[in-house]
Amino acid sequence: MLRQSTLDQLSQIVGPGNLLTTREDLAAYAYDATPRMGRLPDAVVKPGTTEEVSRILQMANREGFKVVPRGAGTNLSGGTVPIQGGVVMQLTRLNRVLEVDTENLTALVEPGVITSDLHATVEAIGLFYPPDPGSMTVSTMGGNVAENAGGLRGLKYGVTKDYVIGMEVVLPTGEVITTGGKTVKNVTGYDLTKLMVGSEGTLGVITKILVRLIPKPEAKKTMLVFYRSLDDAAQTVSAIIANRVIPPTLEFLDNVTIRCVEQYIHAGLPLDMEAMLLIEVDGPRSVVEEDSSKVLQVCREHHAAEIQVAETAEDSLRLATGRRAALPALARIKPTMVLEDATVPRSQVAAMVRKIQGIAEKYDLLIGTFGHAGDGNLHPTILCDERDTELMERVDEAVDEMFRAALELGGTLSGEHGIGLAKAPYMPLELKDAGMKAMIAIKKALDPNNILNPGKMYIDQYAGWQPTGNGHGDAPPSSTHHSSPITHDSPVATEAR
Amino acid sequence: MLRQSTLDQLSQIVGPGNLLTTREDLAAYAYDATPRMGRLPDAVVKPGTTEEVSRILQMANREGFKVVPRGAGTNLSGGTVPIQGGVVMQLTRLNRVLEVDTENLTALVEPGVITSDLHATVEAIGLFYPPDPGSMTVSTMGGNVAENAGGLRGLKYGVTKDYVIGMEVVLPTGEVITTGGKTVKNVTGYDLTKLMVGSEGTLGVITKILVRLIPKPEAKKTMLVFYRSLDDAAQTVSAIIANRVIPPTLEFLDNVTIRCVEQYIHAGLPLDMEAMLLIEVDGPRSVVEEDSSKVLQVCREHHAAEIQVAETAEDSLRLATGRRAALPALARIKPTMVLEDATVPRSQVAAMVRKIQGIAEKYDLLIGTFGHAGDGNLHPTILCDERDTELMERVDEAVDEMFRAALELGGTLSGEHGIGLAKAPYMPLELKDAGMKAMIAIKKALDPNNILNPGKMYIDQYAGWQPTGNGHGDAPPSSTHHSSPITHDSPVATEAR
Repeated sequence: MLRQSTLDQLSQIVGPGNLLTTREDLAAYAYDATPRMGRLPDAVVKPGTTEEVSRILQMANREGFKVVPRGAGTNLSGGTVPIQGGVVMQLTRLNRVLEVDTENLTALVEPGVITSDLHATVEAIGLFYPPDPGSMTVSTMGGNVAENAGGLRGLKYGVTKDYVIGMEVVLPTGEVITTGGKTVKNVTGYDLTKLMVGSEGTLGVITKILVRLIPKPEAKKTMLVFYRSLDDAAQTVSAIIANRVIPPTLEFLDNVTIRCVEQYIHAGLPLDMEAMLLIEVDGPRSVVEEDSSKVLQVCREHHAAEIQVAETAEDSLRLATGRRAALPALARIKPTMVLEDATVPRSQVAAMVRKIQGIAEKYDLLIGTFGHAGDGNLHPTILCDERDTELMERVDEAVDEMFRAALELGGTLSGEHGIGLAKAPYMPLELKDAGMKAMIAIKKALDPNNILNPGKMYIDQYAGWQPTGNGHGDAPPSSTHHSSPITHDSPVATEAR
Repeated sequence: MLRQSTLDQLSQIVGPGNLLTTREDLAAYAYDATPRMGRLPDAVVKPGTTEEVSRILQMANREGFKVVPRGAGTNLSGGTVPIQGGVVMQLTRLNRVLEVDTENLTALVEPGVITSDLHATVEAIGLFYPPDPGSMTVSTMGGNVAENAGGLRGLKYGVTKDYVIGMEVVLPTGEVITTGGKTVKNVTGYDLTKLMVGSEGTLGVITKILVRLIPKPEAKKTMLVFYRSLDDAAQTVSAIIANRVIPPTLEFLDNVTIRCVEQYIHAGLPLDMEAMLLIEVDGPRSVVEEDSSKVLQVCREHHAAEIQVAETAEDSLRLATGRRAALPALARIKPTMVLEDATVPRSQVAAMVRKIQGIAEKYDLLIGTFGHAGDGNLHPTILCDERDTELMERVDEAVDEMFRAALELGGTLSGEHGIGLAKAPYMPLELKDAGMKAMIAIKKALDPNNILNPGKMYIDQYAGWQPTGNGHGDAPPSSTHHSSPITHDSPVATEAR
């Protein structure tokens, strides 16, 4: 609980209409898109300016409450769950595209801008902002930057980090800094821009984002290819790259996912196939023709059982529907869906898919796997029911094994969803002791009072920091504030849902 | 001076053949490629393994001596000058290309690998590592990464940072961490990889570098274009981009530079032109044809006075000679050359060139300006004589004005040469107080004893840290160790040169 005087001050800063405190209002901010994780905040503030953000953070340091920055709450790793209570800082009021500079090919946006709105704005004038996370029609640029969001075009175009070249950011202490700038080249000081990208709201609150843009590709071509054998599909992926074609999109669906999608959208997908690849090439028209011929030849050489090629823009959209529908199609099968994003080097995709299939068998689980085969970023998705305790224990064990398998294959815990709470305990497995300590040292350097988004990325736990942010700088934390970082069995979670 | 016991221990770690202590040997490590800055180290060590690097850094923390990591010493901002004495750590023994992974398109190299050797290795199998700093035939990958080196292809391909996706790095305390990995997507923890890139040897000693590669462009075309008017040249640059062509190379030479180059290489360059542009487009053959036609049309529309187009690879090399010769051509005019790399947004290139010309007039200086017009990274080069005190005072004032002009135009102090000593005092002008403090906090977090490359990037000065690293952890520093960070008039500099 926050003191009334604290709430009064917050209300003065943001205006009474931008402070939420009723249980009904707070309940909406107890969760993000991650299942099984929740915690009621003590208040929600919606600042409208950088200065308001700064004043709130200064106050938080003075009074000792925690602040969890949040955009649209589409996070898939529990990153915006206010696990230690305190204040959720909702940044969606800062939602202007401040500038599109067509000469320097940059855009300056506020964190609340919806990603697909930025796409539409720049594409209307022939420019292109490539990152396209699955949630792009809802998610905000601030959230994308804080999580270093990926998407379907990572293989050719990279991820959010590759486009952010500057920002205005309020440090945890309330100080405002501006990093980077409109130049492609900038080596003045440490790269705080890229440090902030992907820091999951633990190092600063981003209030302005400068991204670079590229010319919009002239043309694209979409191909949908089915395989009876998983190995053939995997070898197709490698062979395409070996032929020096780097498609922006090279997506994979396994048999479980194909079946769920077909059940959902009735598009006539063949149900007996081991793998589906959605391949898109783009660029100048001549290159698209050349590259798509190469791709189709490679597919045939690797025993593709069925190939569909889009001839029109509508065709293209239709072919992509199956891939875009994968997540909702899986989600409707069971009450709970545990979606992971363990990522392996491209050459290990087939090995990883096989490991996942083995794990599904071992724990008797229904797992659909889809994802970005081109960049090794797979989404094994366990279909389950959180009310079934015995089942969920098997799910947790399976997830544990998947993380270990990804690391063994030279991969990483998270390709694009972030660590947040969901993958927090596995951090030391990948970063080792020295890596964790370096990270904690940086966190401590910029956020000495551990104000911003505490309890995430295993930082607090590894550093041995106790949760103290309950709004009473001087009072001992109440027992409900001592909830475990992963609240599988937290009463608050069930209560507030 | 280091204690004899310290030298004995260092000798034990690296072997007696890899420890230099004679004045003659040390003199070679007192300087890098930056004029007017030098300081004799107390010793030079050449470790041959990561473990040796780690042991030396642990020892440095125990005994309180400074360590300056160094590759080929081609630094242009005094970044490898051992300004507080101590040990120069020469990393060129670690010079193996450990792996080129053709399936995942990555290369793993040690820091001592020469940049152009990596180019040759990967291009021989149809792959491409784009960063090409001017010194690439001499400079090392470790130095490139530590400085985030740029080059001629920044506009289309970005800089070193855009290709480094992982590393092994020994932290200042001697702990070894591994960051990133072979996956394009990786959001596990803070991005220590990008934090290390461009940190100028102040946050860690890089012992392995993982870079991503791309397919080698199929073809390229080189064009050399001369203009009677600077504005026409600048407008050509903007118009090319507005036509959605992003050439890898879009280089500029002003009249002073054209004249110096012609005097040097006798290539028949026209001496009455205000500006020369070297433009290269690359990609699939069909795209190169299309893009070069567009470029040539834009050049004609903007009153190009003379256009040469390379029809063969030899022609292409010949046309690029003038640009590649710019630096040596300017260097031979006067005894001293002060080379800067202030960088502005592309749209401000003409304004910046005009400011530089105004500054040359105001201070009665000969300044040749060339550089990367496409990414706004200009190299105003003052031709002078360091023995002429009065002249050098004017040079310093001119440099000061140039930095301020770049910042006023929305640019940055350094596009690719680094801050080091040369631009150190200007850091607060760009980063402001809050930015400097954030940087110092990170430095302190990772290097609590200020062991690694002290006195650089204005960190020590702004933090109020006193130089103490003289090899005697307990003895007071001798007066010669108190030399100003910019040793224009340091007796050591003149003495050791």
